[in-house]
This record gives sequence, C-alpha cells and structure tokens, in this order.
Amino acid sequence: MTGRGKRERPPDEQPATPASDDDLIWGVNPVREALVQQAATISELFIQRGKGGARLQEIIEGARERGIAVRFVEPDRMRVARTCRHQGVVARLSAARLLSFDGLLDRIAEDRSSPPRLLALDSIQDPRNLGSILRSALAAGFQYVILTRDRSVPVTGTVACTSAGAVAHLSLCQVINLSDALNRVKERGFWVYGAVVEPGAASIYTADFSGPVCLVIGSEGKGLRPLVRSQCDVVVTIPMRAAFNSLNASVAAAIIMFEISRRTG
Amino acid sequence: MTGRGKRERPPDEQPATPASDDDLIWGVNPVREALVQQAATISELFIQRGKGGARLQEIIEGARERGIAVRFVEPDRMRVARTCRHQGVVARLSAARLLSFDGLLDRIAEDRSSPPRLLALDSIQDPRNLGSILRSALAAGFQYVILTRDRSVPVTGTVACTSAGAVAHLSLCQVINLSDALNRVKERGFWVYGAVVEPGAASIYTADFSGPVCLVIGSEGKGLRPLVRSQCDVVVTIPMRAAFNSLNASVAAAIIMFEISRRTG
Repeated sequence: MTGRGKRERPPDEQPATPASDDDLIWGVNPVREALVQQAATISELFIQRGKGGARLQEIIEGARERGIAVRFVEPDRMRVARTCRHQGVVARLSAARLLSFDGLLDRIAEDRSSPPRLLALDSIQDPRNLGSILRSALAAGFQYVILTRDRSVPVTGTVACTSAGAVAHLSLCQVINLSDALNRVKERGFWVYGAVVEPGAASIYTADFSGPVCLVIGSEGKGLRPLVRSQCDVVVTIPMRAAFNSLNASVAAAIIMFEISRRTG
Repeated sequence: MTGRGKRERPPDEQPATPASDDDLIWGVNPVREALVQQAATISELFIQRGKGGARLQEIIEGARERGIAVRFVEPDRMRVARTCRHQGVVARLSAARLLSFDGLLDRIAEDRSSPPRLLALDSIQDPRNLGSILRSALAAGFQYVILTRDRSVPVTGTVACTSAGAVAHLSLCQVINLSDALNRVKERGFWVYGAVVEPGAASIYTADFSGPVCLVIGSEGKGLRPLVRSQCDVVVTIPMRAAFNSLNASVAAAIIMFEISRRTG
C-alpha cells in the first residue's frame, strides 16, 4: 500500500531564482553588504532549502526586519552564473530605487507644486501591465506610487523596460499592508479614490477630484481587495458605451489618471 | 575563392506558417474552396517554395485578386498537423470575420444611432497592442474599425484573446491603401483626426469632435505615415504632465477614444 505522502509541487510551480541574472547578487558577503547599504533596492531574497548556519540566519532575519520577501528554494532551482558560488543565498535587486513608505510621505510633504497626485497599485501581477501603468502615471503627473509587496510583480527589468524608462523618474515605494498605508495617506490630507467596474459607482467624469488625490487601482480580474476598498473615500468607474463592460487594467488606469489630470489643471 | 553568393536570411527571419494550427487550413481543395466561399476570412496564404502547377497558380492569383498577402516559404517551414498533406499550400484564417471596405461603409450608412465613430489603425504590428485597442474601441463606442493589410499584424487568435472577445462585436475591415480609404471616408461626411505626439497639435481636450469622427492611430514608434497623415483634417495630441513625452500606443488610443466618447454623449 502506498500511503498518501506529502504532496510535492510540480517543478514548474516551485520557486526558482529568475532565469536572467542581470538583476541578481549572490554569496553571503555581497548579500549581507547589500542588506546593510541598500536594503531598499532588494526586492526578494532566495535561500537554498536545507542550508543553515549563523550567517545565513542573520541575513534571513535582516531581510525580514526590512520587509523583504524571503523564499526557500530547492538546490537545483538556485541558478546563477556558474563561475561564482552562491553559498545558498541569492538576492534580486529591483530595477528601480524604492523608497520606504515614510520616505515617500516625506518627499510628498516637501513637494511645493500643485496638489500632489498619488497612485496606489493593489497586487498588479503582470509586468507589462505594471510597466505600462507606470509609464502613463509619469505622463499624467502621478509622480508618487505605492506598490504592494505580496502577490505583486517586483519592479524587474521587464517592468522598467515596458515603462519606457519612467520608473527612474517616479518616486516609488513598496508596502506590505496597503490598507494601513491608505489610512496614513488619508491622515496626510489625501482623498482616496478606488477604481471599480460597477454601474453604481460615481462616474469619473463627475466625481470631485480637487485637492490631493490618491487613486487606487486593483489587479486585473480581481479588482480591489475588500480591506483596501474599505479604505476608499469614493469608488469611481469609467462609463462604457457597450454592454461589454471591461478594459485592460493599464488602459483603465491611464484613462482615469488623464481625466484627473485634465480637470485639476 | 568563395564568391559572394546569394545571401540567405537566418532561419529565424524566414517566413513560416504559424506555430499554432488552430486558425490554419491547408491542401489545394480546402484552400481553393475557402478562397471562393469566404475569402474575407483569409488573412495570409503560405505557398511552399519550388512547388508549381496550374492549381497552385490559380490559388495564388485568386488570393492576389482578393488582396490577400501571399508568402513563399521553404519546405521545412511549412508546419501543419502531420496527419494531413498540405500539398504546398496553407491559408491562415482571421480570428475575426472581416468585412470588405465597401461592406463597412454600407453598414455605417445603415446605422441609425448617434454619429458613428470610426477607428483607423495604421500598421499596428504588436498583437497585444492591437487586441487592447480593439477592446477599448468597443468600450468607447468605436464600433467600426479599418485595419491596414501590410506591415500589420493580422487579426490572429492572440489578438482576439487580448481583445477579451471584442473582435466578435466590432465591424472590421482591412484595406491595402489607407490613404485612399480615408479619402472615401471623408466623402461620406466624416472628419478625420490623426493622433500625433507633437506639442503644436490641437489638444484632445479642446478639439471639436462633433459630427461623424474617424480617428487614425499610427504604429508605436513610427506614428502615422506621411500619406496617411496628409489625409487628416486635424491632428490632435494628448497634453502630458511630464517632459517625458510618450505613451503606449494602446493607452494613447484609449485615452483619445474615451475623451471623444465623453464629449459627444
């Protein structure tokens, strides 16, 4: 009799270091150094399953303290250039220099231009969609962007490329709890607008967008998560001409951002 | 001495039948039948290089008369399901049922609703961009679409999929000469608006979009071709907030279509 053993995830679903290593660093000392010097640029940490020791443990704890996602990976999924030993640890660097959430709020507070426009992206998973949204954000004057950390694509090279370089001109941060972050954004005087696809929501063409605006965009398919939505002061929607009620997430985000930009001068 | 022989294109650049055969038909009789019965659904014809004979010649001439692109392909690039012989000829069917240009004009003439909105796409090459534009077109009430045939992606399964099914609800046609087509569109009372990225062009927020509108979108990177542009009554642009002066083609198309839709009720 064969018992019902522990289920193995099929190989394709197991985490692995990214195929391209142009945004990776590896080895105990390089990764420890990066954690101390430039933690905000690390988007993910990969640890080889079964590896231990005080130095690795210190890296794992240091990453967790700084809110960096830690993933444990089978030995054969640790892929880096063959010439250097990874010693069980690989870090993926973000293609963008990310601020801390407080750093972003400080930068907004120092901004002396017209009412600031803030974009919050809830769990966007497609790198091309994320890149396209960031490109439109810059063109529409949404200078500040909050990204979620979990269930979200990190700001990889593909994202930077699809953004046509916009990531380098935006102020970006990543948060673990978007609902808490929106709460703090409201304390700073922002009105929070959630984009939804619902006939009952306010039309983007009549909603009041005066004052500091924070626009929240959900993932394609799932939309805003309930806790995130509960933090929105207003939910807004794009009126459609056809019974066919759907737009690509990056297109919807762009239409709303440009409508806000058009009306707030 | 080795002379400078005829240059061979590297294998990746040689034309080949598409990898997926779910929108292909092949064999002399099936293709000849499709040409007679449903020529408007054939987007491309692949002929095996070196094959000849009266029946193939008849198919090639029939395709050319109907404005269908004919591509000559090396034997090893003719890939279809192994169970059936292709006899040197493969036709790719469009995922959408295309109208003739006259058929499209007739359908517009019969339309008794508000001023019709027509979209013309000049040489869009990326299937995801094309799909996204068609999806936005339907949502913004641009029911009629003119596509160019050359240097353009055909309406493949990928396009239909990225359009989230919108292709099935739109009236689409493909033309060889877009400049001539725009001329005829103007004779039918349309005003032709070309989308450009130029500071001197009219802002989409102030341009007059009353009456029947035909919006022309160029390819990403190259924009409108000069002859196409010369047919435009007005060129319009999206005012940007950043010196960073660029948007994804599908995003720009959506913003302009929704602005026209917003103002023309």
